[in-house]
Amino acid sequence: MPASGDRLRQLLPGGVFEANCPSRVVLDHVTSKWGVLVLVALDDRVLRWSELRRTVEGVSDKMLAQTLRSLEGDGFVHRDVRPVIPPHVEYSLTPRGRELVALLLPLFTWIVENAHDIVG
Amino acid sequence: MPASGDRLRQLLPGGVFEANCPSRVVLDHVTSKWGVLVLVALDDRVLRWSELRRTVEGVSDKMLAQTLRSLEGDGFVHRDVRPVIPPHVEYSLTPRGRELVALLLPLFTWIVENAHDIVG
Repeated sequence: MPASGDRLRQLLPGGVFEANCPSRVVLDHVTSKWGVLVLVALDDRVLRWSELRRTVEGVSDKMLAQTLRSLEGDGFVHRDVRPVIPPHVEYSLTPRGRELVALLLPLFTWIVENAHDIVG
Repeated sequence: MPASGDRLRQLLPGGVFEANCPSRVVLDHVTSKWGVLVLVALDDRVLRWSELRRTVEGVSDKMLAQTLRSLEGDGFVHRDVRPVIPPHVEYSLTPRGRELVALLLPLFTWIVENAHDIVG
């Protein structure tokens, strides 16, 4: 898939940057700091709340709840309540979430590999 | 380049999600809503302030200034003051910025193509 600015401009001739474009809403969710970290944390893994909380270091309960709600609402994350005693909840990526994470990972890996040079 | 969560976990065995990891800082800048939009707007183009302001619909002067400062500080955006009368300023991507945008575009294009289904 050739992905250039030109292609993007063809895709939305009115401008991908329009304030009312629905892609703005999705972009907001996906590019929230915690959104990216939660999505990448769930790559190839099923995690419980407490495991997610530990993996995404620094996230508060409130922000984690809000992030998961928005990712679930967009259909990226599946929430599974296990009928055990005591009940527990598991989070995983949906097929759509996996598509998204496949695109996030190269970006994320590049950032990790270059962060020292950039910040330093 | 294979980019999987496993590869990422190998890259930073301590956890890519650590609160003090410098990648967090870069991630913050890159995934700020306006950061992504400005970077993509500059793909293959040199734009003046007023052109950027128009292209990234909805951005305020203050947010655009802040976003450009942070992207310039990270070495993604080059700011060129043209010695003409009246002087004007042009913005473009640096080589590092172009590397980043090459990774952002597939993600961005996917979001644009899927946003209606996701939000709808």
